[in-house]
Formats: sequence, C-alpha cells, structure tokens
Amino acid sequence: MTVFDRLESEVQSYARSFPVTFESAEGAWLTDVDGNRYLDFLAGAGTLNYGHNHPVLQEKLIDYIKSNGVTHGLDMHTKAKAAFLEALEEKIFKPRDMEYKVQFTGPTGTNAVEAALKLARRVKGRETVISFTNGFHGCTLGSLAITGNEHHRGAAGVSLDNAVAVPFDGYMGDGADTTEYLDRVLSDNSSGIALPAAVIVETLQGEGGLNAADFGWLKNLEKVCRKHDILLIVDDIQAGCGRTGTFFSFEPAGITPDIITLSKSLSAYGLPLAVVLMKPELDVWHPGEHNGTFRGNNHAFVTAAAALDHFWSDDKFAADVRDKAAFLETRLDEIIDRYGDGKLYRKGRGLMQGICFESGELASKVTKECFKHNLVIETSGPEDEVVKCLVPLIISKQDLAHGLEILELATAKAMGKDVSPSKAAAE
Amino acid sequence: MTVFDRLESEVQSYARSFPVTFESAEGAWLTDVDGNRYLDFLAGAGTLNYGHNHPVLQEKLIDYIKSNGVTHGLDMHTKAKAAFLEALEEKIFKPRDMEYKVQFTGPTGTNAVEAALKLARRVKGRETVISFTNGFHGCTLGSLAITGNEHHRGAAGVSLDNAVAVPFDGYMGDGADTTEYLDRVLSDNSSGIALPAAVIVETLQGEGGLNAADFGWLKNLEKVCRKHDILLIVDDIQAGCGRTGTFFSFEPAGITPDIITLSKSLSAYGLPLAVVLMKPELDVWHPGEHNGTFRGNNHAFVTAAAALDHFWSDDKFAADVRDKAAFLETRLDEIIDRYGDGKLYRKGRGLMQGICFESGELASKVTKECFKHNLVIETSGPEDEVVKCLVPLIISKQDLAHGLEILELATAKAMGKDVSPSKAAAE
Amino acid sequence: MTVFDRLESEVQSYARSFPVTFESAEGAWLTDVDGNRYLDFLAGAGTLNYGHNHPVLQEKLIDYIKSNGVTHGLDMHTKAKAAFLEALEEKIFKPRDMEYKVQFTGPTGTNAVEAALKLARRVKGRETVISFTNGFHGCTLGSLAITGNEHHRGAAGVSLDNAVAVPFDGYMGDGADTTEYLDRVLSDNSSGIALPAAVIVETLQGEGGLNAADFGWLKNLEKVCRKHDILLIVDDIQAGCGRTGTFFSFEPAGITPDIITLSKSLSAYGLPLAVVLMKPELDVWHPGEHNGTFRGNNHAFVTAAAALDHFWSDDKFAADVRDKAAFLETRLDEIIDRYGDGKLYRKGRGLMQGICFESGELASKVTKECFKHNLVIETSGPEDEVVKCLVPLIISKQDLAHGLEILELATAKAMGKDVSPSKAAAE
Amino acid sequence: MTVFDRLESEVQSYARSFPVTFESAEGAWLTDVDGNRYLDFLAGAGTLNYGHNHPVLQEKLIDYIKSNGVTHGLDMHTKAKAAFLEALEEKIFKPRDMEYKVQFTGPTGTNAVEAALKLARRVKGRETVISFTNGFHGCTLGSLAITGNEHHRGAAGVSLDNAVAVPFDGYMGDGADTTEYLDRVLSDNSSGIALPAAVIVETLQGEGGLNAADFGWLKNLEKVCRKHDILLIVDDIQAGCGRTGTFFSFEPAGITPDIITLSKSLSAYGLPLAVVLMKPELDVWHPGEHNGTFRGNNHAFVTAAAALDHFWSDDKFAADVRDKAAFLETRLDEIIDRYGDGKLYRKGRGLMQGICFESGELASKVTKECFKHNLVIETSGPEDEVVKCLVPLIISKQDLAHGLEILELATAKAMGKDVSPSKAAAE
Repeated sequence: MTVFDRLESEVQSYARSFPVTFESAEGAWLTDVDGNRYLDFLAGAGTLNYGHNHPVLQEKLIDYIKSNGVTHGLDMHTKAKAAFLEALEEKIFKPRDMEYKVQFTGPTGTNAVEAALKLARRVKGRETVISFTNGFHGCTLGSLAITGNEHHRGAAGVSLDNAVAVPFDGYMGDGADTTEYLDRVLSDNSSGIALPAAVIVETLQGEGGLNAADFGWLKNLEKVCRKHDILLIVDDIQAGCGRTGTFFSFEPAGITPDIITLSKSLSAYGLPLAVVLMKPELDVWHPGEHNGTFRGNNHAFVTAAAALDHFWSDDKFAADVRDKAAFLETRLDEIIDRYGDGKLYRKGRGLMQGICFESGELASKVTKECFKHNLVIETSGPEDEVVKCLVPLIISKQDLAHGLEILELATAKAMGKDVSPSKAAAE
Repeated sequence: MTVFDRLESEVQSYARSFPVTFESAEGAWLTDVDGNRYLDFLAGAGTLNYGHNHPVLQEKLIDYIKSNGVTHGLDMHTKAKAAFLEALEEKIFKPRDMEYKVQFTGPTGTNAVEAALKLARRVKGRETVISFTNGFHGCTLGSLAITGNEHHRGAAGVSLDNAVAVPFDGYMGDGADTTEYLDRVLSDNSSGIALPAAVIVETLQGEGGLNAADFGWLKNLEKVCRKHDILLIVDDIQAGCGRTGTFFSFEPAGITPDIITLSKSLSAYGLPLAVVLMKPELDVWHPGEHNGTFRGNNHAFVTAAAALDHFWSDDKFAADVRDKAAFLETRLDEIIDRYGDGKLYRKGRGLMQGICFESGELASKVTKECFKHNLVIETSGPEDEVVKCLVPLIISKQDLAHGLEILELATAKAMGKDVSPSKAAAE
Repeated sequence: MTVFDRLESEVQSYARSFPVTFESAEGAWLTDVDGNRYLDFLAGAGTLNYGHNHPVLQEKLIDYIKSNGVTHGLDMHTKAKAAFLEALEEKIFKPRDMEYKVQFTGPTGTNAVEAALKLARRVKGRETVISFTNGFHGCTLGSLAITGNEHHRGAAGVSLDNAVAVPFDGYMGDGADTTEYLDRVLSDNSSGIALPAAVIVETLQGEGGLNAADFGWLKNLEKVCRKHDILLIVDDIQAGCGRTGTFFSFEPAGITPDIITLSKSLSAYGLPLAVVLMKPELDVWHPGEHNGTFRGNNHAFVTAAAALDHFWSDDKFAADVRDKAAFLETRLDEIIDRYGDGKLYRKGRGLMQGICFESGELASKVTKECFKHNLVIETSGPEDEVVKCLVPLIISKQDLAHGLEILELATAKAMGKDVSPSKAAAE
Repeated sequence: MTVFDRLESEVQSYARSFPVTFESAEGAWLTDVDGNRYLDFLAGAGTLNYGHNHPVLQEKLIDYIKSNGVTHGLDMHTKAKAAFLEALEEKIFKPRDMEYKVQFTGPTGTNAVEAALKLARRVKGRETVISFTNGFHGCTLGSLAITGNEHHRGAAGVSLDNAVAVPFDGYMGDGADTTEYLDRVLSDNSSGIALPAAVIVETLQGEGGLNAADFGWLKNLEKVCRKHDILLIVDDIQAGCGRTGTFFSFEPAGITPDIITLSKSLSAYGLPLAVVLMKPELDVWHPGEHNGTFRGNNHAFVTAAAALDHFWSDDKFAADVRDKAAFLETRLDEIIDRYGDGKLYRKGRGLMQGICFESGELASKVTKECFKHNLVIETSGPEDEVVKCLVPLIISKQDLAHGLEILELATAKAMGKDVSPSKAAAE
C-alpha cells in the first residue's frame, strides 16, 4: 500500500489516468521512478507551454535562489517583481499598444477570476455576470458560479448565484449568431436576465471541449458589450501565453477586453502565478480588499520575466507555434479522414486542438491506449469526449509527429480499424 | 515613476506600509535594493515561520531543481509528493495519533477553505456554515462569506450567503461562554439559525486581532458540535505549523477537528502550498470535483518535507518556540506596564502576540515609527488596532530582543512618554 | 388635497391612468362619484371575468353573510369550502378527466406561485426553476425571481436566485423552436444551467405583452419536461377561468400540467382567492408548512362555487366567450389594417387580445384617448407597448363593439390618421 | 370519504386540530354543521379581534354590496378606499400624532412584510435585514428568510439569504440586554454581520410563543437603530389592532417605528387586507413596483372603516380590552399556581397571553381536552409548548371566564391533578 493509497484523498483525478509515480522531467518528456519515459501531450493542462524545466529559466531560478533573492514577499515591492512588470510592459504591452494595470492575486487561475468578477461588479454596480455554456473558470465559489460543468457545480453544496449562462458561439447551430440572442435579452426590459456587470469568455474553451469562438463572433460580442455598457472579460488562463500562436488568444480577433485573467503558463516554469489585467480606469480597488498570502511568489516572477525575454522579444517563437499548429491540424485531419467514418471531427485552434469522439467512453479508450504507448494525453468536454493535444509549445516537430502516430494507432484501434500500411510501419 | 507606479494596481497594501523595494532575505532579515537591512516581525503574515531562505531547505530545493525533478505535476503522483506525505505521516500524524486523509488544493489558504466547506456541506447535506466574529478565512466568495471583515466583504459585490457569524470566545464579555449561546440557537427549533454543516474556527484569530480562544471554550465548542452532529473545522492556516509552540494550534486544547486547513508556513520556504486534512470517513470526494492547476507544486513538497524532517523530528524546535514566546510575553507586558496607562493590553498566544492600542491610528503610528528604525511590523484587528509580533520562529533571541526594543521606543513615543532610562541607553 | 394625495403611497399605478374616484359597478360598467360611467376593458386585470357584482353571485353572497356563515376560517373545514371543492370536482375536474389535489394558499396569485415553487423543489430535491422571457408571476421574492420584468425585479433590493429565464415561444424568431434550445441545455452536462425542479409557464403571457404560445410548442415543452424528469407548472392565474374560451388556458394544447396555479377570476366576484392544484402524488406537504391567515376566505368560496355552477355546468358560456373572441379578433384586424401602416399587429388569444404598437408612448396615447371617451383600457408588455382588451367575459356584444369603436378612434388618432367614414359616423 | 379527504392537500393544519365542519359564527362562537357550538379562543389566529360577523360591520357590508359598490378595484381610487383612509387618519393617526403614508399590498400579512423589506432595502441601499429569534413574518420567500421557524424554513427548498437572526429580548437570560449584543456586532467592523437596511421586530411574538418584549428593551432597540442609521420595522400584524390594549402594540413603549405592517384584524371582519405604513420621507416607491391583484379589496375597506369608527373613536373599547386582559392574567396565574408545580408559567401581554408547558406534547393534551369541551384553542412556540388564549377582544367576560374554566380543567388533567373543589363545582 503506497503512501498515496494510505493518505491522499479520493479527489485526485489525473493520478487515476496515469497511475505511475513521476520523478523528473525535461522539455516534452516525463520520467517515472522506474526510469520509464513518457511524451507529454498534456503539458500541465496548459501550464507548461515552455515544457518542463526549461534550461534558460532553470538557470535564472537557481541563480536567484542561490543569491537569497526574496522568495515570499506578500505584495511588497521586490526587485524580481519589478523585473517581471518591466518585461510585461516591454515585451507584451508596448508592442501591442495595450495599456493595462496589473493585479497580482493569489497564484491560482480561480483567484484571478474571483478578483476580476469583484472588480467588474464594483465598477458597474451590478451583480450579474454573464458566462457561456461549457465555460470553465475555476472551483472557488465565485468562479464556480460562472463555470458550466455540472460535475464541478454539484460539489458546491450551495446554490450558485448572480451568474447567467448564455449560448457560446455555435451552440444554437450553424446559422445562429448567439450574440444576437444576447443582445435581444439585454435589450428586452422584461427578459428576466438583468443587465450584467460583465461578460466573461474564453476565446477557446479548454475544459469545455476545445470550442473555438469565431473571430467575427468575438467582435460581435465586444459590440454587444459596448452597446449595453458591460465589461468584457477574457479569461485567457488556458488559451493565453502563446498557446494559439499569439501571446493573447484574442489578438487575431482584434478585440480589446476590459479585463484579462492570466495564470497557468504565465510563470513559464510551472510555478504558481496569476494576474488580472485591467484597463487603468477600471482600477478602483481599495488597498488590500482582495488579498492573499502568495500573491508575491517571487520565484515565479523570475521565471516569468525570463520567459518573456527569451520567447517574446520577437515573433520567432510564436511563428514556430503557428507552424507546428498547422502540422498538428493536418495530421489530425488525416487521422479523422482515415478512421473517422464521418463520426469524428477536429476541434480547437493553434496548439490547442484535438479530436471529438462520439462518446467519452470511446475517447477514454484512446487516451488509455496512448498511455500504454507512453503518451500522456487527456480528454475534455462535457462528456470527456474530446481527446486534446495540449503539447508543450517548445516540443520538437519530431516528438510532435511521434505522439501523433501513437494517437493515430490508438484512434484506429478504438474505431475498430486496421492501421493504414504506412502507419503500421511506423509502429 | 517606477514600474510599480505605472503598472501595479491600487489593490496593493503591504507595499504602502513598507515603501522600499526588497531584493534579498535571510532568516529574520530583509535587504532592500539599496543595501538597507530590515528586521522582519511580519514573516510573510505567518508564512515564513522558518525564516527567509532557510539554508537547509534551500539546498534541498536547489538540488531538486538541478536534478530536473518534476516541478508542476497537476495532481499526479510524484516522488516529491510521496516524500512529503511520508514526512507528514511520520513526523506529524503518527506521534499525535492522528488519522487524516490529505487533499492538495490550489496552493492558497482560501482554496483549502473553499474545499473544506464543500466537503462539509456534502458530508452533512446542509448549506449553512457557522463562523465567528472577527474570523478571517480568505477572499474568494465561499471563504469570504465566513470572513468577518467588512472591508473585504464589501468588495464582493454580491451578497454572502449560507454563513452565520456567532460570537467568538470573549465576545460577549468575560462572564459569558458563547458556546452556550451557540448551543441555545442550535437547540431552538425556531431560532432562525439553521443546523449548519460545520463550524469553522481559528483557535487564535490572526487577522481578527490576535484573539486567542480559551482551551476550555474550544473543548465546549467541540462538545456542541458533537451534540448537534456538526463538523468541526479548524482553520490553522495562520496559527498552525508551530506558530503557537505546537505543530497544530489546537493541540493543547485536546480537541480533534474533523477537518483541518493548512497553508502559509506549510511549504516552510514561502512557496505556495495548501492542504485540507479530513478524517478518513469524510473523504467522500468524487474524482476531480475540486481541482486546480497548481495543486501539485512539487518545489513546495520538497521544502515542506525537508522542514518536517528538520524541525519536527523531535520537540526541540517547538520547545524553543515556547521559550521565545515566554520571553516575548514578558517583554510585551513590560512595555504595556511602562507606557500603557492601563489603556494597552497584550493579546495572542505563542509567537503570535501583540499589543492592543486604543485606536488603529495609534497602532499605525507605532508601526510607522518601527519602520523608521528598520523593523517591519504590522497591525491587525477590526480597526487595525493591534500591533502584532509575527516573528519568524527561528529568530535569534538577540534579534527578538532588538526588535522589541524598537517596539518599546515606538510605543513610548506614540503614547507621548519618555523612554525609561535603561531603554534610552539601549537606543 | 384629497386623502389619496395626503396618505396613499407613491406606489399606486392604475390610479394614475384613471384619475377619478370610482363608486359602484355593474357588469362591464364602472361609475365614479360624479355619476360618470366607464366601460371596463380592464376587468380587474383579468379578475372580473364575470363582470362587476354579478347578480347571481351577489345574491348568494348576501344570503351567506346574512346567515352568519363563517367568514374567516383559517384552513378549517367549513360548509362553504366543501361546497366550493365539490363544485370544482363536479364542474371542472370530472368533465375534463383531471385528478388534482387542491391547496388553499394566501389569497393572492403570488402566494400560490410561491407554494407551487416550494412544492416542486421539495418533490424533485432541486433548487432551480426555469421560467420564460417576459413571464410574470408575482412580486414576493420567490415569484419575483421567475418574473422577467426589470421594473419589478429592480425593487427587490437583493439578488433573485435559483431561477433561469429561457426564451418563450417565438422569442428567437419564427424558425426556431425554443424548446429545442431548452432540451439542448438540459441535455448538456456542462451548459451551466442546472437540471431544474420545474418549468413554469403562462400559455399566454398577460403582463409580458399578450404573447400566446403555440399549442405545438406547449406540447414540445411538456415532452422536454417528461424527458428530463422536470415538473411542468402552468401559471393560469390570468389566462385561466375561461379567459381564452376554455376553463384552463392549456386545454386546447392537450397538455397535462403537474401543478396549476389559479387566482384572479377564481372567486368570480373580485374577492381574494388563490389555489394550487397538484397531481395527487405530488402532495408531499407537511401540515402547515406553507400557511397564511386568509387561506380560508369563505366569502370567496361562496361566490366561486356559485360561478362554477352558473357558468360551467355546460359549454354555453365558454362557447359564447369563443364567439366574442372571434368578433374581437376580426375587429382588431380591421383596425390594424386601416391604420397600422404595417406597423401594428394583433397579439393574444381568446378574450385576451390586443394591438401591439411600435412604442409604449404610442400605446399610452391610445389608452389615454380611450379614457377621454370613458373607456378603461390598459397596456402591457416590456415597454407597455401592447394595448390589451381584457374585457369582462360577460360583456354584451353591443358593449364590446362600442368599446372597440372607441379603440379604433383612439388608434386612428395616435397613428395620425382620419377615421374611415363608417367609423366617423359611428362617433 | 368527504370532499376534504378526496381533494384537499395535506398541507392543512388547523383542520387537523378541530376536525369538524363549521358552518356559521357569531361573536365568540362557532357553530358546526351539526349545530354544535364552540367557544373561540383562537379568533382566526388574531384576525377576529372584533369577533365573527360583528353586526355593525355586517350591516355596512351588506349595504355596500347591495348598492353595487365597487368590489375589486386594483389600486384605483374608490369611495370605499377614501373612507377607510379618512378613518385611519382621523381615528388612528391624528390622536397619536403619527404621520405615515399608506401602501395597500396584496391582502396578506406576508405580502405587506415583503413590501416593507423591499422599501427598507431601497431606502438604505443595503441588503441585510435583521430579525429576531422566534420571529414569524410569513411564508413567501422574502418573509420566510426573516422567520425563525425551521418547520416553515425547511419548506423553502432554497437557501434563505440576506437576513440575520439575533437574540430577542430575554433570549440570553435575564441579566443580558440583547440590544447590547446587537450594538456590539454593528459597531464592530469585523463582526461578520453587515450593517442592515432594517431591523424587523414583533413587540410580542405570537407564533414564536407569546414572547413579550420589555418596553425598555424596545426603546433600546430603537436607539440602536438610530445610532447605526437603520430602519426600525414593527410587524404588528398579529399584536396590532387593539390586541394588547392599544391600537398599536408598541404604543406603551413610546417608540416610533419607521415602517409598520398591519393585516389580520385590520379589516375587522376576517376579510383579507394588508397595509404598510411608512414615514412619508421613506415613500420612495416607483409606480407599480410592488403590485398585486387584490390590493384594492373594497369589501375590506368598508368593514375596516366601520370598525375604526365604531371601536376607535374613543378609548372605551381599548380600556375594556385592558380590563379583560387583567382578568385573563389573574386567572392564568391562578391556574398556574394551582397545578403548575413550578413548571408552568404565564407568557404574553394584553389579550395575547397563555401558559407555557414543559413540552409540546403536554400543551397538545390540553388543547385536545379543551376541544372535547367545545373550546377552540391552539398552541404556539418553537415546540408548540404554549397554549395561547387569543380570544376575540369583544368576548363577554362571562364567555372569557367560561373558556378559562375549561382551560383550568384541561390543565389540571394534563398535569395529573384533581381540580380544586371550587372548580369541580363549576364543571
């Protein structure tokens, strides 16, 4: 009986899918205590965009620790925090003509979301926040109220209020622009849906099943927000930090959110960090109103600043991501064509794409089979029906190709097909 | 104009009290970018019980990073997590005859509290949770509902429900045992206060102003919980991890909480980490119901395990804490006697004690004066009227004495008194 | 300065539209203190289906009072209550093969709705109730949460929870069957809309602007409820009691609600009365759980029983209503054709129809002009843009025609048109 | 099987205590369908202060009906409403130097309470309302949130929010003035109890077990409200309209509520009627915000106005009530002395007094025994442990004495005692 069996709560989930004990990791590869290596197509659920233990960041971190750099700083000013803010200003805000204030929240995505909701409600003096079907924003009570998943919501034990879910892009079928429905209920004085403080949206719903919003839809959503004097919050926690081929996922849509939440890959090294970005005029916080012990996680500042310098000083890294995304797209389409029988389809955008299966059962067969071949890959979606390739952005094309071959074999098997000759050879 | 002025949100608070930029830190001392050194009587608001960058922990952490140990592991099993769990079992649970399951939540105290509340509501099938006047449990919506402070509550922007605050020990004056009132309303079918799922209590309210519950009161509280079939949750996030002279703050009261939350000094190095401990039979979680990206912060596992080994293998460290607490107590009483005019009094327990002033204004004068003498010290309480000595537990007696002399001078000045001769000499 | 100016609250509304003091009333006519007579196209907002002071009911009521019949009976059994229940059983339930238990609630519609919601939540053990855009169910907190109108909702002063508004029939345009959207979100485990205890619907939304649900849509709604194990509540408070040509408004749709609320015209004489009808197996109330002082208003039982006997012993009355409804429909269409310029349209069903104008301002001009010609008529709808002919069902065809001529003149004037020659003659 | 068995919901309660079918009633007496007569010590739970079918009121009502007086008037001005308002002004407000605006709500007590809560929240811009342990204010969702009884609260099926129950007078034992506790939590910025919009109080808790607040306590409560800028609402629905010997129950305490709710005996004849009285400057309602179909129940206006004229033109009636109250008090004390063994005690004030038994079971034995002797009497209190003498105020002293003899016999029997000789003779 391992210590995990003896002591760890039943709440654990990923540990059930990958029942080994990991020890070390480098780039796109994990190694378990028995020395087995696994290719990582999960990347910390979007937290390891730069892979495991990136050497450039690692060096900076070790140097910082050795120099007795402040580790824990509450929200006090530190040299490391200044360096992070300067990098954010120089590498991200200025090139994009963005002007935002930065709030350091407790270092979890859900904490940033809670802060964003509070701020929006304060600014607008309204209680309701509108979210979207299949959205995921976190598990603390405020974030949970705007999260769609009933598995998570059901754990609250209390009712989840002051939130209204409306249909995401595509939810009502191809013809319907769901922002029209939103505009309709907000224009209607008797719709039963109160004027909200804000709309919160993921441009690409990660947990919700890799639903990618059309850029036109996002533009329309922004228009509806402006028309009704509602704040637009983009939760870019999973899709941000380069995942879709630009730093922010919403860049190609040409919209300007009022508030942005970032976490996951922001620290670049897997260290806890989360921020809220807000237009300067929205910074109406009173001192210390939303606080938290670990909002000054300086190790994370160090690696985050290093990553901004290393990866975002020019467009090379982002272009490489887009290049790999195109390859991923092609390969997923091939797999779908070969074994899908018209029942599978590709979802997502950038390096956040996957295959939608007919059922969660089928998708689960695929990921289990992949793990037998040492590929760590997971599902998402309301029924866990989407197998998602959430690869480290720094993955080599070779590793990417290798992982996709495993996925192809597993898909073929799950669909009851023979692998096509060229693929069989590859095995 | 610094980058903090340009970019950081108005929400910052400690940075206002200590307007310098810190760079490095060791033990009980912080150093700013200009090389000035500050004695730390704040200790990360209870997060740095073992001081800044403790060399034993630092070495383990650097070794781990150099070995490419897994940094971010979602909730997957890792060697580092196993080592932490084993240390917790051996050094903490076994010697105390405790049997608990461990849930790793998002690495903030408030996240652990949210999980504890969910679990209690699930187990009992009830919605209400009872908390205490002046309690503080966090700023996400679920935790905020059981937090007393109106400054924080007012930021919610929505109503805070399913929580009832009842009077903490001493709140109704010396004669009254407030657990009797609690028993009364719970026994009364028409009191308007529903049978709760749980009662959540800090044995020593940190943010609430260093209110220490009497051990007899805690025992009575446990009895009321048992009588009415209510779970007893101890939030030991600030007072735990040795702060009061025992690992858990409730040990001397001889009570057995159903659920315990820990965070702050658990990682021992200032790294984000939080856990919920629950009696095994309460572990009714479904897989993944309460999740969070950073619940597997392996750097924190490494330092946490090292600290359990180093400080908690025997009673020496705890005894030393109790010894220094006695010294602190004596010195605070002296200061109060000398300058208090009967208007000041000592509050708290262990190395979590301070002086209660007549107003927040006065207390603020004291901390400002201290900072002029390079002592970092803060206030707490409903009106910020308590100056609290939240020293690193590893502080040397000499540093402790030094800091207290600064506090004495500042107190004398704030109270409009001359410093007594012996003290003046010391200056 | 009248006593109304001195003492009555600003909350009054109808008194503003019809600024006279009424004294007596008979059938479809009201008389003010100066002896002026007014034709009543408002009928107590649907409460006076049988007109004012109907002589048959009046006689029964006077006899009862003279005999010292019990007036106020809490929920005790009385002879008058028995007679009402027997009439309900014989004249309504049996001919329609309906089996329902009857709950007498506080004698207001909103109280019946509150009881229905409680019961549904108890039966299903779920908190959410689904309502429809533009629905109106009352102004106490539970009913208000499922009411669409922001003017009313805004008065709550607290957030309105545990309710979700979804699009009513026609709300998303002609092509879309909005029950499909409802089915979609209920089938989707991650839609953010919890499985509700019940759906509550008006088949014809009175306050919402005379929106009549298609019978096919109602059948589909019932199917969605059955599919997802959700109770179907029909709020027939305004549209019931014969208003649409059948006793219950839902009869022609062929659906079987689980719970029905009735009030307004149920007492038949304008006396306060309200009931909840529930399928027998849903009667899970504990004694006295939902109580109220006036739930045994015996005067109302007397007139209600008399009306069931007098009007509902055969189909004659209902047929007459349908006949008058056809006339109303024809005349409204004529008016619209003559003066509408394609901008006006008819809404509603049975004797609950009206004309939708382009704005509330225009509609208000019409009703004001009507009142100048001694016609009492009101508007409804989100912008008060629908002029509604809520005539007493017992109105003579002559009076109905007369009122409609006034409406025609007022409409012509508001639309800036000359009255057509035949109409001018009529004036 | 009666029609009640076949059709009426299980929710009925009083019908269970008094399982006969009543037919007629006069003054303090009820008659069932078999001609049996019952003395009424329940008086419609405080609704029949002037007894059943009082001849003076009856005559006015019949005349009004015969004259085709407006029965149902929505909130339109009618002659009958004007007469009621004038009587209220002349007979009640002026002699007491009171200045209030009058809002007619839906004709149930709970509806008046809901309106009062909305108004208070609007005026103060705050959400919380403070109520008292054992308070009862109604069963619609807003009122239920401030009602103590768990039997009723449990039926809500949703959480009851924005309300905080604090201890009523005497709840913490004899020594403690619970308004001090209230002042303490409101003065404490970190108590967890938000500054409320209003405090709502019954000066004499009817359903809560006849708990009478001390006048000094009420004065202190008013002071706390003024100090913290909180509205004081007196819910005088059960204790008002003369029940305690003055028109309003709070008159002898010398307090001036900001808002008063009245219902029950206001119509004086058992007809549904409810009003909110508010200080003129609080009348910030927008037109029609809180509406309801039956807020213009003109029959009730007629009897209410007649009762104000008849009973409240001078102090005779009130003096008579006080006289009978003194007699009731004496007799209850005798009964308690004779059979109480120190275990019974008297509770209440005016003609709203009763005997508190050790258990609900015992109290229930007493009321059952009384009913065997044709006395209709009920219990109240958290455990239904208080037998309450809620007699019609117009009861003759002879009938009052008679009923009390029955109560004495029943009490003796329940307590296992022989009736004292003089009493036995009386039987």
